[in-house]
Amino acid sequence: MRKTISIAPGLGLGGDQFVVMAGPCAVETRELLLAAAEAVAAAGAGMLRGGAFKPRTSPKSFQGLGVEGLRLLAEASARTGLPVVTEVMDPRDVEVVAEHATMLQVGSRNMQNFPLLREVGRQRKPVLLKRGAAATIDEWLAAAEYVLQEGNPDVVLCERGVRGFDGSTRYLLDLAAVPVLQRRTHLPVVVDPSHGTGDAGLVPAMAKAAVAAGADGLLIEVHAAPEIALCDGKQALRPAEFAQLMSELRRLVPLVGRRWSRPLAAGQATAVDAAGSGSHRIPPNLGSFDDEVIAP
Amino acid sequence: MRKTISIAPGLGLGGDQFVVMAGPCAVETRELLLAAAEAVAAAGAGMLRGGAFKPRTSPKSFQGLGVEGLRLLAEASARTGLPVVTEVMDPRDVEVVAEHATMLQVGSRNMQNFPLLREVGRQRKPVLLKRGAAATIDEWLAAAEYVLQEGNPDVVLCERGVRGFDGSTRYLLDLAAVPVLQRRTHLPVVVDPSHGTGDAGLVPAMAKAAVAAGADGLLIEVHAAPEIALCDGKQALRPAEFAQLMSELRRLVPLVGRRWSRPLAAGQATAVDAAGSGSHRIPPNLGSFDDEVIAP
Amino acid sequence: MRKTISIAPGLGLGGDQFVVMAGPCAVETRELLLAAAEAVAAAGAGMLRGGAFKPRTSPKSFQGLGVEGLRLLAEASARTGLPVVTEVMDPRDVEVVAEHATMLQVGSRNMQNFPLLREVGRQRKPVLLKRGAAATIDEWLAAAEYVLQEGNPDVVLCERGVRGFDGSTRYLLDLAAVPVLQRRTHLPVVVDPSHGTGDAGLVPAMAKAAVAAGADGLLIEVHAAPEIALCDGKQALRPAEFAQLMSELRRLVPLVGRRWSRPLAAGQATAVDAAGSGSHRIPPNLGSFDDEVIAP
Amino acid sequence: MRKTISIAPGLGLGGDQFVVMAGPCAVETRELLLAAAEAVAAAGAGMLRGGAFKPRTSPKSFQGLGVEGLRLLAEASARTGLPVVTEVMDPRDVEVVAEHATMLQVGSRNMQNFPLLREVGRQRKPVLLKRGAAATIDEWLAAAEYVLQEGNPDVVLCERGVRGFDGSTRYLLDLAAVPVLQRRTHLPVVVDPSHGTGDAGLVPAMAKAAVAAGADGLLIEVHAAPEIALCDGKQALRPAEFAQLMSELRRLVPLVGRRWSRPLAAGQATAVDAAGSGSHRIPPNLGSFDDEVIAP
Repeated sequence: MRKTISIAPGLGLGGDQFVVMAGPCAVETRELLLAAAEAVAAAGAGMLRGGAFKPRTSPKSFQGLGVEGLRLLAEASARTGLPVVTEVMDPRDVEVVAEHATMLQVGSRNMQNFPLLREVGRQRKPVLLKRGAAATIDEWLAAAEYVLQEGNPDVVLCERGVRGFDGSTRYLLDLAAVPVLQRRTHLPVVVDPSHGTGDAGLVPAMAKAAVAAGADGLLIEVHAAPEIALCDGKQALRPAEFAQLMSELRRLVPLVGRRWSRPLAAGQATAVDAAGSGSHRIPPNLGSFDDEVIAP
Repeated sequence: MRKTISIAPGLGLGGDQFVVMAGPCAVETRELLLAAAEAVAAAGAGMLRGGAFKPRTSPKSFQGLGVEGLRLLAEASARTGLPVVTEVMDPRDVEVVAEHATMLQVGSRNMQNFPLLREVGRQRKPVLLKRGAAATIDEWLAAAEYVLQEGNPDVVLCERGVRGFDGSTRYLLDLAAVPVLQRRTHLPVVVDPSHGTGDAGLVPAMAKAAVAAGADGLLIEVHAAPEIALCDGKQALRPAEFAQLMSELRRLVPLVGRRWSRPLAAGQATAVDAAGSGSHRIPPNLGSFDDEVIAP
Repeated sequence: MRKTISIAPGLGLGGDQFVVMAGPCAVETRELLLAAAEAVAAAGAGMLRGGAFKPRTSPKSFQGLGVEGLRLLAEASARTGLPVVTEVMDPRDVEVVAEHATMLQVGSRNMQNFPLLREVGRQRKPVLLKRGAAATIDEWLAAAEYVLQEGNPDVVLCERGVRGFDGSTRYLLDLAAVPVLQRRTHLPVVVDPSHGTGDAGLVPAMAKAAVAAGADGLLIEVHAAPEIALCDGKQALRPAEFAQLMSELRRLVPLVGRRWSRPLAAGQATAVDAAGSGSHRIPPNLGSFDDEVIAP
Repeated sequence: MRKTISIAPGLGLGGDQFVVMAGPCAVETRELLLAAAEAVAAAGAGMLRGGAFKPRTSPKSFQGLGVEGLRLLAEASARTGLPVVTEVMDPRDVEVVAEHATMLQVGSRNMQNFPLLREVGRQRKPVLLKRGAAATIDEWLAAAEYVLQEGNPDVVLCERGVRGFDGSTRYLLDLAAVPVLQRRTHLPVVVDPSHGTGDAGLVPAMAKAAVAAGADGLLIEVHAAPEIALCDGKQALRPAEFAQLMSELRRLVPLVGRRWSRPLAAGQATAVDAAGSGSHRIPPNLGSFDDEVIAP
């Protein structure tokens, strides 16, 4: 029996419930964040992603807005009704991140940062644990055990590509990890085709492939203006590209025995924004969503 | 404009035409080969695969039946109407293989066997060129150039997994290679999830993922009795498993803008057989293959 | 001009000074630690290694003695005169580790733990930065920049193997990283053949190879009784094996333009232990060391 | 007991005998080949390497001079007294290559070209079998079995780097393969630091490391004028660089229990040439070669 993690009213991940988490790589400005958040909400995403604390290869790169970024994420969440998933890198920041976000992300570089894993294991929030670029499946599951052992059962595993030898893609997305994990663990598995390829032009194909492989969700980078992004603009979809991908995913998801999951608040929030009437759960361009595909 | 390779009357590969090639890893006995061939024909495959010359890691392993295996493949082809794709390893065998088969396979270990590539380039038969386990996309395309340069334009590229570091799967199937190749070449791209995972239990998920990623076809190992296979039994689907996968693929293929392609002779061959025996080897629900999906 | 880091009176690392750091993987008991420490001091090591905080793949494995382990390391250092290098995993532990040790090790799993790198960058202690198992040379140097940028210029880079595809060795020791780094940075480079192979039987060959490749030092696991080790016993040398290796290294080091470096205190400490006379800096079995090979 | 392969009078490889094989990547012109051959003979090489049939990634690259190249190699061998090792790629060329060369090289791309392995196994000439870029040690030894099984016991294994993820070097030289192989097989093991790094500046360090790791020999590219080489000029040493490396290797080889092996004919050839010309092609700094280390 595969586990369903309850994230917010109406929003479950795992079992037969499928969730798309989308948003910018990093929180850069209030305007850019809100634009991305509203676009992904309108296109049917179930969660908002965005980084306030950014693990950058070089200390000279933009490092994120920190706590100010967390506040902006919380504001975007309130406006769109989408719960937030955001990365925490430092055990000393776990509490403040947990105050502002619904799901705590442990990034690829920290998959074996054991003090951090223990600290997120002590929170009562779901944890998104990305695979390390050189981690075997066994090592990844052992890292998840650090969280579980502290009493937090809600771990979501995220495949995001391992180190490969061909520079054609930034990482080598290992989609076979999805069915392999589903044999070995009851935990949900999501896929990040944005980091897994490093190339926006490859994201739609690999997002669809991840769904067909049986993933429980996707983590996709969307930026209102990728050409000015401070972080990973090359791999971010534009809002229109994301909406197009979402319309294709809606047809695919039911074919693999999943149903689309979205928070109740997303409908309410967008309804208010759209008309203040409370009657339109979903903006007009989503009118073709039927009840089977998208849970209320 | 992506290239469509015409393989047999009614059967094209590439462009919007999607082909499943299926059959045993190796030709072992006449009975086992025919059983597999009829099963894959009945389930809707477009081509029969099977090895007469087997590149085995150890000289102590079964090396294939050689020319006798080619004759059996030709017989199975005549009975099922499915054209045959089979591997050639030695430049001195290219002519005899070309006499018996429709498509010449150059295996992963021989991707940079340049004398062999030149020899298959001199034939007027389509060539299936598998990716080497350590080959970059650029090296793979350069290998294809050896075939093209000899005057043979009909090269199909086959992703079959690269060497990875995690023993959970035999190879690491690099599905992002599919959209990467589609940017760089007009040649069709197929995927072999059987070698790409080495594990029959993972083949259905990865076959579906390959289709969703945009592959033009699949190469799938099917054995009438995997438990007694002399070669790679662990990765072969049973006929019933293959039929189940095919029914799922039929729903998926049209979602990515492809249509199912099968040789005209496949219908005729089975019709003759069926009429002679009074038993319908091809189930009725495939009789109504229509242009849209092949739905029942 | 390559940098020499001054570690203790008489002990420099880099430039023409070569240092062997040796000791157990983990501090387990006082007796085992002192036995290993005295053995490596007697054999000519320049520093004592040993883990008090252990980053273990599984939470069920021995996690180290923590602060008690640090105290034992400090005691072993006082007895042998060897400065201690030990790992720190948690930014909150950096200060207590810095109180007890001379050199702070950042392990492979934490190479991109940026909060930790910043914290060790704020200490006035040399830092040993191990390469991540999937890290390129560029990523590794960028990680070192995090330490340097905080004002700590004393970073030693440690190659310890990257993830390879062949289970014959635990990791794939990338010795070409040594001359590659020496082109790109002035920082000293040491090699850990113990983790780099995971196999005590391969350590002597790879230790000698590292010296011949131009490494400025070695990090070698030595355990008084590997068969009862709680951590990585398979890769630990016994004291007699280590002494034999050291005698071979002494002949090799001068051939590549380096001289053996040891702390002044090592001689004094062992002298007291050996005879209480203060006259023998080096125990009798090291009598063949000449002044050219081992600097005073 | 490790095997010694007798290659020519005075020249053995394996056991305690160490051999350097050197020369250009490809035979390009008679003048360049003879210049390189004489330079490597003068510097103390035991065998001449050079490619007549070149396996090039692209069909547009220089493919070698073929049989004309073999004739030039034979001439260079006669002039220098150095036996020739050269690559054969096509089973149909094995006989002609065997007529002109002393040792048959099977390249990395053909490690699992089984028809070729069988054909060289039928010759009575030693075979140099390079490791495939994605081959495990087990697969490599199984490939050697194809040669041995045909009745040819004289296989030399050549580590030349596996596919790695860091573009800092062309391949990742796996020196731990040397001691791993020495546990598992009695066959000699040599190392090719030229292909293993792809970078002339790294060759000396890695050549020395290979010796220290216990290799039985080296394969080193030397070109009289690397800047005009048609193939792999970037990784070729100039004659003066090679001579400098050889002088360092001479000090290192005896430290790991080996003695330098050279063919009797090398001394005679150079003696004749030298006597005829009045000029000493072997520089005085080789005068210190003693009988134990370098055979006359």
